[in-house]
Amino acid sequence: MLEKIDLKQSLKKDAYNEKMDYFSVKLGELQRACRAAGIPVIILFEGWRGAQRNVIINHMMQQMDARGFRVYSASKMADEEPDQPFFEPFWRQLPAKGNMAVYYRSWYYLKNEYTFDRDAEQVKRINTSYRHINAFEKQLTDDNYVLLKFFVHVSEKQLKANVQKAEKTYGKGWDKVNESDDDFVDYQRYLEIYEKMFIDSDRPNAHWYLIAGDDTRFAEVSIFDVIVQRLELALAEAEARKQAGQQLVLPRTEIYDVLSKVDLSKEIAKAEYKEKLDKYQSKLSLLQYEMYKKGIPAVFGFEGWDAGGKGGAIRRLTAALDPLGYSVNPVAAPNVVEKEFNYLWRFWTRFPKRGEIAVFDRTWYGRVMVERIEGFATQDEWSRAYAEINEMELQWAEYGTVIGKFWLQIDKDEQERRFNDRMKNPEKRWKITDEDWRNREKWDAYVLAVNEMLEKTSTKDAPWIVVEGNSKWYARIKVLETVADAMEKKIKEVEKNRKR
Amino acid sequence: MLEKIDLKQSLKKDAYNEKMDYFSVKLGELQRACRAAGIPVIILFEGWRGAQRNVIINHMMQQMDARGFRVYSASKMADEEPDQPFFEPFWRQLPAKGNMAVYYRSWYYLKNEYTFDRDAEQVKRINTSYRHINAFEKQLTDDNYVLLKFFVHVSEKQLKANVQKAEKTYGKGWDKVNESDDDFVDYQRYLEIYEKMFIDSDRPNAHWYLIAGDDTRFAEVSIFDVIVQRLELALAEAEARKQAGQQLVLPRTEIYDVLSKVDLSKEIAKAEYKEKLDKYQSKLSLLQYEMYKKGIPAVFGFEGWDAGGKGGAIRRLTAALDPLGYSVNPVAAPNVVEKEFNYLWRFWTRFPKRGEIAVFDRTWYGRVMVERIEGFATQDEWSRAYAEINEMELQWAEYGTVIGKFWLQIDKDEQERRFNDRMKNPEKRWKITDEDWRNREKWDAYVLAVNEMLEKTSTKDAPWIVVEGNSKWYARIKVLETVADAMEKKIKEVEKNRKR
Repeated sequence: MLEKIDLKQSLKKDAYNEKMDYFSVKLGELQRACRAAGIPVIILFEGWRGAQRNVIINHMMQQMDARGFRVYSASKMADEEPDQPFFEPFWRQLPAKGNMAVYYRSWYYLKNEYTFDRDAEQVKRINTSYRHINAFEKQLTDDNYVLLKFFVHVSEKQLKANVQKAEKTYGKGWDKVNESDDDFVDYQRYLEIYEKMFIDSDRPNAHWYLIAGDDTRFAEVSIFDVIVQRLELALAEAEARKQAGQQLVLPRTEIYDVLSKVDLSKEIAKAEYKEKLDKYQSKLSLLQYEMYKKGIPAVFGFEGWDAGGKGGAIRRLTAALDPLGYSVNPVAAPNVVEKEFNYLWRFWTRFPKRGEIAVFDRTWYGRVMVERIEGFATQDEWSRAYAEINEMELQWAEYGTVIGKFWLQIDKDEQERRFNDRMKNPEKRWKITDEDWRNREKWDAYVLAVNEMLEKTSTKDAPWIVVEGNSKWYARIKVLETVADAMEKKIKEVEKNRKR
Repeated sequence: MLEKIDLKQSLKKDAYNEKMDYFSVKLGELQRACRAAGIPVIILFEGWRGAQRNVIINHMMQQMDARGFRVYSASKMADEEPDQPFFEPFWRQLPAKGNMAVYYRSWYYLKNEYTFDRDAEQVKRINTSYRHINAFEKQLTDDNYVLLKFFVHVSEKQLKANVQKAEKTYGKGWDKVNESDDDFVDYQRYLEIYEKMFIDSDRPNAHWYLIAGDDTRFAEVSIFDVIVQRLELALAEAEARKQAGQQLVLPRTEIYDVLSKVDLSKEIAKAEYKEKLDKYQSKLSLLQYEMYKKGIPAVFGFEGWDAGGKGGAIRRLTAALDPLGYSVNPVAAPNVVEKEFNYLWRFWTRFPKRGEIAVFDRTWYGRVMVERIEGFATQDEWSRAYAEINEMELQWAEYGTVIGKFWLQIDKDEQERRFNDRMKNPEKRWKITDEDWRNREKWDAYVLAVNEMLEKTSTKDAPWIVVEGNSKWYARIKVLETVADAMEKKIKEVEKNRKR
C-alpha cells in the first residue's frame, strides 16, 4: 500500500499559512463542540522516527483547549513478562466523554516490538493480539468513540535527512525523549511490518489514514483536514442519535436455561462445615503465598440474588488471606466520573497486580442484568456486552490470571425469609432497602437475563460457577473449594511450564 | 517509652470472644456513620515484623464494609533518587471523605530505611523529613481527617517465637508478601530508632498509640477500643461543627502591597518581540531536552486577572516544546470527585514525572483567591493554606524541581478593553462569560487577596514572578525568559553537583 503514496506532494508556505489560519479557528471550535456533545476522541500517530509527528502533534495542541486533551506515548517496551495485561494502560488512559487522547505511539508500536527475530510462539502472540486490537477498537467505536489512526509515511532518503538534521541540533541520540528505535537502519523490513499491520487492522470503523510525510506542511494539512471532516461527521451522528432517541427494548424470549436445573436442596451439617471451613482457609492461606511468589494474579467475581449470601461467602474467603495481597471491590451503580467512560473502564483499572487477588462484590455483569432490565443500557449495548466481556476475560486469562465467577442461587421463598430476618434484626436492618423489595418484583425478568448471561459468558478460562445457595454453609464451602482448586491448578500449570 | 509497656498483659479466649462480638457490630456501625458524615479516616500500623499486624488488620477488615476501605503498604524502599517526591504516593492514596485507608506500613517505615549506616547528609534528610511528616499530618487533621497511629510492640523473645512459627508454616522467607526486613536480628538498634520516631512525631493531633503486642488477642482488643473511642469522638465533633455552621469571613485589612508598585507601562516593539520569541523558543527546546536527560521535573503555574494573557503566554511557552515532555493542566472549580479530597490532592496527583514539565493554567492558589473571596473556604481554611502551600512547594523543590509561579498583572481599564475585544470577535466570544464580568466587580477584594498571597508565598525555590502584562508582547517574553533562566540555572546546578 505504502508504495502507492505519492511522496512528492508538497505545500508552499503561503498555502500552508492560509490553511493554518483556517484550522486555528476550526479545530478549536470542533473540539469545544465535541466537548459539549460528550464525544470522546482518540487520535493515534504511527510512522517512522523521523516523520516529525511530534511537530504535528504540537501544532495541533496549540489549537486545542488543554482541558480534556492529553498526549500519550506507548514507548515502554512490552516485556516478555509484562507487569500488566497488554491493554491495561490504554484502558487507564481512555479519554472520558468529550475528551481527547492523542497517541504519539500506540498499541501498534508495542506490537511491532514482537516482530523481529521471534520464535513461533511469539508470532502466534502477534496474530492473537491483532484479534485483541480489532476487538478493542470495535468496542470503542461501537461505543461512539471517534478513532482516527494516522500513519505518516516518509521515504528512506527523507528519513535519513530528518534524523541527521535533528542530530545536528540536539546531538547524538537526540530523540531520547521519545525513546529511540532504529527504524531507519532497517527501512525495508519495517516497510513489510507496516504493510502487514495495515492489512490486519484496517477496518471500516478503524481506518488507517496513510499520510504522505516527506513534506511536513503537506502532511500536517492532510491530517488536519481528516480530523475536521471526521469530527464534523461525529457531531452530525451524535445529533442524529439524539433525535432518534434511545430505543428501550424489553428482554428477549426464553431460550436459555441454567437456573431451573440447580438443585437447591444441597446442604451440609454444621460439623462438616466447621471442619471444611478450617481446612480450606488454611489451604487458601498457603495458596495465596504461592500465588504471590509466582506472580499469578486472580480475579473472583460474585453475583447473585439480593441476600443470596455474597457478602458472607466473601468474608469466609478473605478471612484467612493476608490483607496486603487482596482487595474487595464492591460494585454499585457507576458514579459521575465512571459514567464518563466505557462501562468496562472501572474494572480494567482495578485489575490486580501480579500475585494479588481482586474480589468483586457484584461485577461488570451489571451491564447484562440490572442495566439491561432497567433500560440503563440499550439493547444494542447490552447485547454486544457478552462478546466484549468475554474478550476482556480472555485477555486477562491469556495474561495468566485465575478467574472465577460465582452466581449465588437461592429461590424466591428463601429470599423472602432472609429479607424478613434482616428486617427483624436491628444490627442487620441497614442491609435491606426499599430497592431490594422492588428488585424482587422483577424476579422473572432477572431469571431471563441471568440465564442468558450464564450461557453466553461461561468460558473455559473464566467459568461461571453456579452455587446452590439455600444452605449458606454448603454455598460457602463450595466457593472456598472452587477457589482453592482453581488456584492450585494454576500453580501446578505454572510450575510445569517453568520446568519445561 | 517502649520499656514502660507491660508486655505481660493478655486476654483469655472467652473474654476476647465476648469483646469481638461487640466489635463485630460496633466497628461496622461506626464505619457507616463516618461514611454518612463524610469523615475520612487513616489508620496506620507500625511495629515489628512478627507483630501479627496483618492478622489484626484482617480481623478489622472482616468487620468493615469493603466500600471505601483500602489497605496499603509502604513497602517499597525509598531509593536514594526516588522517582517521585516522598509524599506523592501517600497523597495519591489519600482516602476520600467518608472513606478509610489502613496502612500496614506507612511513611514512617520508609523513613526508617534511612537510619542505618548513613552519612551526615542523609541524617539531615531524616530530620528534615520529620518536619514534613508533622506538616503532612497537621494538614490532614486540620482538615478533619481522623489519624490513628498504632505501634505494636513485642518483646525480643516473642518476636523470635512468632517468626519461627510462621517460617514453619510457610517456609523460609515466609513474609515476602510483606517484603521482609530484618528487624528481629537487630532488636536493640531498632528499639532506639523507634524511640526517636515517637519523640519526633508524637503530636496532640497525631498521637502514637503504643500497644502491648506479645498477646495478639490483647493487642487486637486494645486497638479496636481506641478505634471505637476515636471514631465516636470524631462523629461528635463533626456534629458539633455542623451545628456551629461555617463562619464566613470577609477579607482582612490591607497590610500587603505588591501590585500597586508594578510598572505597567513596560513594553517592547514588534521586531524585538519576534526576534526574542524565536530566540527563547529555540533555547527552550534545547533546555527541555537537557532537563529530560538529567531527569529534572519542572512546574510552572500561571495566575492572573481574567484576560490577563495566561493562555497566550502558555501557548508561546509550549510552542517549541516536545509534546511528549509537557502537559498543560487547566484548573477550574474542583469536580465532585476532587471535592471529596483535601484541596491539594488534585495537584499532588498531577506532579510531573522526572524530566517532564507540568504547566498549570490557574493553580492551587485558588484556595487563597476565589475560594477565599467567594467563601468556599472558611477563614480557618484559607489562612492556613499559605503555610500548607509553601510546604508542598518546598517538598517539590527539595526533590529537585524547577518551580515558577507567574502572576499576570493588567490594570482594570486594560481588562475592559480586552473583554470588549473578545465580545466583538465571534471567534473569541466563547472565551468570555457572565462570570468574568461578575468577577470584575470584585476587583478590589482580589487585589487584597493577591497581595497577601504574593507576599506570603513567594519563596526562594518557588518564587512568584509578577509579569507586567498590559503589553502582551512584553509579558510573553518575560515569561519565556524567566522559564529559560530558571531551567538553565537548575541544569548548571545539577551538573556542578554531579562533578563534585
